[in-house]
Amino acid sequence: MEMITRLYPNDWVKDSIMYKRGEGKGSSGVTHKLTEDVQGTYIYTMGPYSDPVMHIKPGDQVIVETRDAFEGAIKTEQDKPSELLKMPFLNPQAGPIMIEGAEPGDAVAVHIESMVPRGPKPQGTCCMIKEFGALTGTYYTATLNEPLPEKVRKVDIDEENVYWSDKIILPYRPHIGTLSLSPEIDSINSLTPDNHGGNMDLPDMGPGTITYLPVRSPGGRLFIGDAHACQGDGEVCGVAVEYPTVTTITVDLIKNYTIEWPRLEADDFIMGIGSTRPLEDATRIAYRELIYWLESEYDFDRWDAYMMLSQCGKVRLGNFVDPKYTVGAAIPKKYLK
Amino acid sequence: MEMITRLYPNDWVKDSIMYKRGEGKGSSGVTHKLTEDVQGTYIYTMGPYSDPVMHIKPGDQVIVETRDAFEGAIKTEQDKPSELLKMPFLNPQAGPIMIEGAEPGDAVAVHIESMVPRGPKPQGTCCMIKEFGALTGTYYTATLNEPLPEKVRKVDIDEENVYWSDKIILPYRPHIGTLSLSPEIDSINSLTPDNHGGNMDLPDMGPGTITYLPVRSPGGRLFIGDAHACQGDGEVCGVAVEYPTVTTITVDLIKNYTIEWPRLEADDFIMGIGSTRPLEDATRIAYRELIYWLESEYDFDRWDAYMMLSQCGKVRLGNFVDPKYTVGAAIPKKYLK
Amino acid sequence: MEMITRLYPNDWVKDSIMYKRGEGKGSSGVTHKLTEDVQGTYIYTMGPYSDPVMHIKPGDQVIVETRDAFEGAIKTEQDKPSELLKMPFLNPQAGPIMIEGAEPGDAVAVHIESMVPRGPKPQGTCCMIKEFGALTGTYYTATLNEPLPEKVRKVDIDEENVYWSDKIILPYRPHIGTLSLSPEIDSINSLTPDNHGGNMDLPDMGPGTITYLPVRSPGGRLFIGDAHACQGDGEVCGVAVEYPTVTTITVDLIKNYTIEWPRLEADDFIMGIGSTRPLEDATRIAYRELIYWLESEYDFDRWDAYMMLSQCGKVRLGNFVDPKYTVGAAIPKKYLK
Amino acid sequence: MEMITRLYPNDWVKDSIMYKRGEGKGSSGVTHKLTEDVQGTYIYTMGPYSDPVMHIKPGDQVIVETRDAFEGAIKTEQDKPSELLKMPFLNPQAGPIMIEGAEPGDAVAVHIESMVPRGPKPQGTCCMIKEFGALTGTYYTATLNEPLPEKVRKVDIDEENVYWSDKIILPYRPHIGTLSLSPEIDSINSLTPDNHGGNMDLPDMGPGTITYLPVRSPGGRLFIGDAHACQGDGEVCGVAVEYPTVTTITVDLIKNYTIEWPRLEADDFIMGIGSTRPLEDATRIAYRELIYWLESEYDFDRWDAYMMLSQCGKVRLGNFVDPKYTVGAAIPKKYLK
Repeated sequence: MEMITRLYPNDWVKDSIMYKRGEGKGSSGVTHKLTEDVQGTYIYTMGPYSDPVMHIKPGDQVIVETRDAFEGAIKTEQDKPSELLKMPFLNPQAGPIMIEGAEPGDAVAVHIESMVPRGPKPQGTCCMIKEFGALTGTYYTATLNEPLPEKVRKVDIDEENVYWSDKIILPYRPHIGTLSLSPEIDSINSLTPDNHGGNMDLPDMGPGTITYLPVRSPGGRLFIGDAHACQGDGEVCGVAVEYPTVTTITVDLIKNYTIEWPRLEADDFIMGIGSTRPLEDATRIAYRELIYWLESEYDFDRWDAYMMLSQCGKVRLGNFVDPKYTVGAAIPKKYLK
Repeated sequence: MEMITRLYPNDWVKDSIMYKRGEGKGSSGVTHKLTEDVQGTYIYTMGPYSDPVMHIKPGDQVIVETRDAFEGAIKTEQDKPSELLKMPFLNPQAGPIMIEGAEPGDAVAVHIESMVPRGPKPQGTCCMIKEFGALTGTYYTATLNEPLPEKVRKVDIDEENVYWSDKIILPYRPHIGTLSLSPEIDSINSLTPDNHGGNMDLPDMGPGTITYLPVRSPGGRLFIGDAHACQGDGEVCGVAVEYPTVTTITVDLIKNYTIEWPRLEADDFIMGIGSTRPLEDATRIAYRELIYWLESEYDFDRWDAYMMLSQCGKVRLGNFVDPKYTVGAAIPKKYLK
Repeated sequence: MEMITRLYPNDWVKDSIMYKRGEGKGSSGVTHKLTEDVQGTYIYTMGPYSDPVMHIKPGDQVIVETRDAFEGAIKTEQDKPSELLKMPFLNPQAGPIMIEGAEPGDAVAVHIESMVPRGPKPQGTCCMIKEFGALTGTYYTATLNEPLPEKVRKVDIDEENVYWSDKIILPYRPHIGTLSLSPEIDSINSLTPDNHGGNMDLPDMGPGTITYLPVRSPGGRLFIGDAHACQGDGEVCGVAVEYPTVTTITVDLIKNYTIEWPRLEADDFIMGIGSTRPLEDATRIAYRELIYWLESEYDFDRWDAYMMLSQCGKVRLGNFVDPKYTVGAAIPKKYLK
Repeated sequence: MEMITRLYPNDWVKDSIMYKRGEGKGSSGVTHKLTEDVQGTYIYTMGPYSDPVMHIKPGDQVIVETRDAFEGAIKTEQDKPSELLKMPFLNPQAGPIMIEGAEPGDAVAVHIESMVPRGPKPQGTCCMIKEFGALTGTYYTATLNEPLPEKVRKVDIDEENVYWSDKIILPYRPHIGTLSLSPEIDSINSLTPDNHGGNMDLPDMGPGTITYLPVRSPGGRLFIGDAHACQGDGEVCGVAVEYPTVTTITVDLIKNYTIEWPRLEADDFIMGIGSTRPLEDATRIAYRELIYWLESEYDFDRWDAYMMLSQCGKVRLGNFVDPKYTVGAAIPKKYLK
């Protein structure tokens, strides 16, 4: 078991599906700024009903100011999350960004280029929230036990490290926790992942990777937020090191690329992503999507793919806290040539 | 995401819990051979009712001849698993080995030193078995769908590689799929993992690692088998590259080391292991055990451990096929100093 | 085990919570007609974004023309559901109906008075839909098995019976499969139940019962549809005897009656309702809600309620097909005096 | 929803599968007494390794003295379960009883004729046990919450009623919580249900019903215990009204009646039974077994059976507490003619 989540390079992107098949050839040279001012009010539910904040073309770059998952409400270690946070107004998202030409049946590619902590002396926030997390009774895993205590941790971060405590320094491994297009007719709160993307909390979804999302609404309607300076598999207490960023993405459009669930590509692997409960069903979706992918684009026989993944497939546990769980199933690219 | 399961070194073992606390100081210098002849009939259920095949002292080394999970019954790619395999007589185990002095409340440490393919021209076997595996209806996830087709793959292996196909060569990453002590009064078939160990199918349980198992029956009663030349996370079709080995282990005894679930130690991480269904409950067990471990032996506050694992915990999916699922939750040792 | 779902009387309603605490005293004497013409386009997602079709006052009666779950598209036993149905445009709902004065923190009570088959020669429809149902791999329980065959059954119904086949006549036991208020900011497709109500598919939710739903959006926004002429526990193939009706309801408003999940009241029992996956979590929610109810309104000690329900609680399995499962947990009223 | 579990008559038994196909024609006229003295030590694990306490012939009657699930250890409401109970020595079973001629591939039929409270002033016991029950974190649903408080209730019982409290009198609805044959090679603790039967906790398994169990070990090896004076669906706190009884059963043998899971027959329904986790999988097993039953013995087409059960199937939640969950799926006999 390798214990450290990698940093991914950007220089492989010219070999990516996005670059080869994107309408914008992976990059158009045009840059937009989605600042706090441009965004105005951040969004808490992803669907076709919110007003667009920006229109872009395939291949355009967008520099996004993301807010932390608590929208900055937790300021000190003495704060009580239960007094400051109000469901479902958690995990604010920037967007929706409309991508020109995106229609149901297409996919939108999101290349995360970089994530930089925002503010003069950047800090991240972790906390324990009542009846939230994997090792406690929750709203859905309903028990009669007393909730766990509330706790807050404020930690300094820079582009090298997360300064967790006097003794423990963790490497800075930024990634986007929540990335979505709009469902067709539903609108889904920003805490929940599903086949539109959403709150997947996959530590691999960082700079140097490309996420492909299925378009189900005209224009795609891209939402982004929930940056983590680092996160363990499963985000087990329910909260990563949440922080505000300047995140730079390039967004491209692949016409007639019909996928059911989000997919992730990095320099050295491809990953299918599933989100539901129970956790075995999320894992089933992720592996099935990966098999379908190997079959349709890499010339594998279905049963060969199934048996081979039994020997070399890799699983990443993402969101493992309410309301739904996310799993990624991956294969190294070196086996795909 | 690192895509390759590591090989672990053995030279760190002098710093292990086994070495520091074991009755045999990690090694006694005495070696036993558990050959096919000594074993006689292999075992399909792990409990206190079978006759011991060997008695050893803490720190003794045992060289074990393991059989493949099908006991060699599947010989060609034309074979039909449904005609050759008969439940519950799958996954033969060597043992039980009695460890002198082992009593309930103690733990037995099993250091896997090496795993060598057995036979003149070693081959491994993978197959698809009716109503078995993660992406099919099964005995427990009962559906009315037609079963998937039966398939067999025979692959050459050596201590470098698994020669999966003309195009694809996988690295040799040996590990023990099934490792158990006896439950107190139950006897559990060798396909099922639980708190006694059993069919955990964790790719990390290979040479260079130490597994700690709770003693629940006098003498501990150690069983071992189910070697895999390599395996993907979850062993998704239900079968790894199954092969016969000569596996060398050192077995030690830690008195008054009361643990509820198996634990794994390598040069650079420690891992708690949980096995049950649904998969979220297996993951909960694994993380909770790891937190208890950090609390009792590494001087962590419980809530600090919980929040820190949310930032740096690593999850490995082991057995993800019937009848129970296994998950390991790990932390790098560098954060434990 | 009693094998037949009961018919419930209406004459007990004067003793109901709705009657005692409702703003409209259980009945205002005013009647509205929500015909197909008034409704216009039926609705497939329940949220705060659709245009109201009607405004009523607490205690008003509404006579609703419901469509069957396939909106009449399946006309003969030779039809292929896969050619006629298009996700997510299934399970059409009438509404939203705005209830004057309804605010977050209140509950809306829906008394179903009667359900009458609609049309000159009423028929119901049952079918098997690909990758839908409890005993098949599905969109979320993803397998690689071939889907089950498609089948359609058209059956005559009247207010006495469902004429299933030459040999088998089932009693007419009408109920509403889908009943909702709006979530606060989400909009949820009509196939999915959750804490807003939705596609609960509880055979008990028929004429003579009252459902209490939590208000989370101003006006409540009531949606209703998915009538079943009869249904077994779990609706195991995914489809009941779906039919169009004239359904008469009375809708009342209980101010400051803050509940988290839907609740059901009949002449002789009260029921808590939970909807999520896995099924044990839905059951946990249902029982916990029932305990909270006994505690807050019937003067039970929490642990007394918990232990007593272990002796006399009754569980009804509702929706047991994708995407979420519904369970009701009930207690006879005779133990509540 | 009918709120009361029925009492079943015995006079229908002459029309049962047991009577028609049993080697002993449902009754041999011979009676055995399995008293506490004959039993000696009660059994906590069901397998092929324990010494028989009795040999009977098909159709013989056995009068069994069962102990309560705590073997009488909890005597007052001031007792602490955590001080008196020791896992896995809970839920003592009488047996094993050897049935002459029983071989793998056969089924054993157990007709419960009567259950009478034992002792001069019979009492039952309910309690809350730490980390045990459905609405608390448990050994398998591992959380970090503090356990619920320990509570004990001692209640008077007679053959009419369970005197739960000053205000609440529950009807006496006796049933056997745990009924097993032996697995083939495993031995399973008496708290766990699976395909051998075991701790199913189905309120329907009372006097007047017949349970069919698959024979997997020569002689069948019948175990019986865990009488409940009444129990709600799911036994939600983990404990019913546990009491010692004199239970009279008739045991018959049906040759070449190969079933995978236990089945239940009463005067007016037949029921398939499944036990596993998660709860949806237990429900899937129960319904699939019922469909197989309708297909093989009642001349149903598979898809007709599946669609019809969607209209009239009934589900009973049995054991809903660790380590596995039990569900029964039933159909009224009137639809089987």
